[in-house]
Amino acid sequence: MDHDFPRPIPLRIVATGEYIPSRRIESSTFDQRWGKPAGWTRRHAGIDYRHFAGPDESASMMAAHAAQDALQRAGLRADQVDVVISVGGVMEQAIPCTAALVQRRLGLAGSGIPAFDVNATCLGFLVALDLVAATLVTRRFRRALLVAGEVASAGLNWDDTDTAALFGDGGAAVIVEASEDDTGSCLLASHMETFSEGTEFCQVRAGGTRVRLADGAEAFAAASHFEMSGRSTYRLAAQKLPGFMQTLFQRAGVTVDQVPLLVPHQASAKALDHLQRALRLPPGSLVRILQTHGNQMAASIPLALHHAITAGDLRRGQLFAMVGSGAGLSFAGAVLRY
Amino acid sequence: MDHDFPRPIPLRIVATGEYIPSRRIESSTFDQRWGKPAGWTRRHAGIDYRHFAGPDESASMMAAHAAQDALQRAGLRADQVDVVISVGGVMEQAIPCTAALVQRRLGLAGSGIPAFDVNATCLGFLVALDLVAATLVTRRFRRALLVAGEVASAGLNWDDTDTAALFGDGGAAVIVEASEDDTGSCLLASHMETFSEGTEFCQVRAGGTRVRLADGAEAFAAASHFEMSGRSTYRLAAQKLPGFMQTLFQRAGVTVDQVPLLVPHQASAKALDHLQRALRLPPGSLVRILQTHGNQMAASIPLALHHAITAGDLRRGQLFAMVGSGAGLSFAGAVLRY
Repeated sequence: MDHDFPRPIPLRIVATGEYIPSRRIESSTFDQRWGKPAGWTRRHAGIDYRHFAGPDESASMMAAHAAQDALQRAGLRADQVDVVISVGGVMEQAIPCTAALVQRRLGLAGSGIPAFDVNATCLGFLVALDLVAATLVTRRFRRALLVAGEVASAGLNWDDTDTAALFGDGGAAVIVEASEDDTGSCLLASHMETFSEGTEFCQVRAGGTRVRLADGAEAFAAASHFEMSGRSTYRLAAQKLPGFMQTLFQRAGVTVDQVPLLVPHQASAKALDHLQRALRLPPGSLVRILQTHGNQMAASIPLALHHAITAGDLRRGQLFAMVGSGAGLSFAGAVLRY
Repeated sequence: MDHDFPRPIPLRIVATGEYIPSRRIESSTFDQRWGKPAGWTRRHAGIDYRHFAGPDESASMMAAHAAQDALQRAGLRADQVDVVISVGGVMEQAIPCTAALVQRRLGLAGSGIPAFDVNATCLGFLVALDLVAATLVTRRFRRALLVAGEVASAGLNWDDTDTAALFGDGGAAVIVEASEDDTGSCLLASHMETFSEGTEFCQVRAGGTRVRLADGAEAFAAASHFEMSGRSTYRLAAQKLPGFMQTLFQRAGVTVDQVPLLVPHQASAKALDHLQRALRLPPGSLVRILQTHGNQMAASIPLALHHAITAGDLRRGQLFAMVGSGAGLSFAGAVLRY
């Protein structure tokens, strides 16, 4: 059990950025691969196309490009941030952490600016935002760069019609800083709940110390693919969502009705539809970029935020919430004034 | 650049815990493997023995056992912590994060207690402590469980006489909470610096989206081993250490002389000797567990702390510092009153 904030935390989202990988993959590609009628994948996944990274588009490269985009929009140099946090769900390599690789790509190799990763699979951005907010209060940091570069395509099983067409690659970046004035931009509340009874519902068993190549190349290859039990995930998520949302909004001291924009993790069309129904959200209040992005793991929420901001759907002074569920199974959310 | 704390943060290390894996490996084992004279590895590495995990001793299993040890010492139940943070350097599997796996092993599967990872290779504990301290100030959390389960043996190249004998496996846990009174236990300062010019000095290239099995099993196997350029690492670390230490102690408002105990990352005998010399530390003020543990990556600093506490070398009210350098290349440190 965690506890209430004493007050909203003055926090301002300064700018966001995006990197779109070079390879645009139409859903028809999957129709052909699977021998399905034209339009099947698009209808099934709710996705027209997604982008996949090419060989030179690594997680850190995409994260760094998104960071440059955000820095440019903010009118800041890279060395004007106090910390670089990679919030991606899957690392670029086991050692060192991805943030160090991003730091180097930003020209900060000799800067000393601290760099580390926060990992909560698809929810890393919200967890890092939550932690960073507290460090702004203590003045440990004044301005943070949060980045996610995701190469979901590296771990897909191309024969799994439930998951292969669901994901997209990409880079996201968000710059946050202490805001001067707590009547303006702020974080009203953060909340996270983890239910590890769902640990096996969404998993990649390899990629760590558990499954090793010495166990056999075939077994290793199978364990390197994303595995999802969609039904179990959906059931557990649907069961826990109401309580989670109630606590989040209660802490923020607002009702869902008072929050005109909800920026969700783009988990799947079904998950987004469920959220819309469960919260009885009016059309247009739920940011959807799934159709042209796919589920971009931890880059998904910051990219949905980026699109809401650049499309003019989120204006300074407005309340908004970000929420998502991810492997774990975890929920995370934040209510902010932009 | 980050900024000074306004004041020490009231923070109490409630208890620590350890898990020692089942397989004790004497350094003579390496002598035999490498055709070296008896005692060569022990002299070369400064390590008598280290423990390696058996097949059932996964990262999350060792982390959870260490957590149970710490909980027992604290007289707490697992459900009395507000958050579970895995600070291990290498994940158990790519998805989900290791903390979710630990949460389940602690019997918290249905608890909702948030679980996520903080990764800074060998420095994750200090980074997470830094972040958690801020969340205690904002009352986001009141009590945190930080765990590290490390299976370094999974990534060693047994033919590399510089690194294979250097590491050990194990589990560590530390429970921290908001202390009631800021004249008592507190965090005086945290500091971190990352110099990604050293990114390639200590690395495991596989284990993420960068190197894939499709690149060929042999190349993949080679990339799965820990690679270290000892000389470059040592040179960069030695160059940056003085400035780093100066900033850390300046922020804490104390001199090295005023801090009777230093709990360092057990990187290597050479690194510990260098630290002792560079800071002109009197004998006995530097906690050394390398000889019987090896370098346990992110479990190393919390286990050195655990041994200092259980040996009675650290008493309530005493100042102490924790410092380390790790892949990245990064430095992290914290000065506390126990």
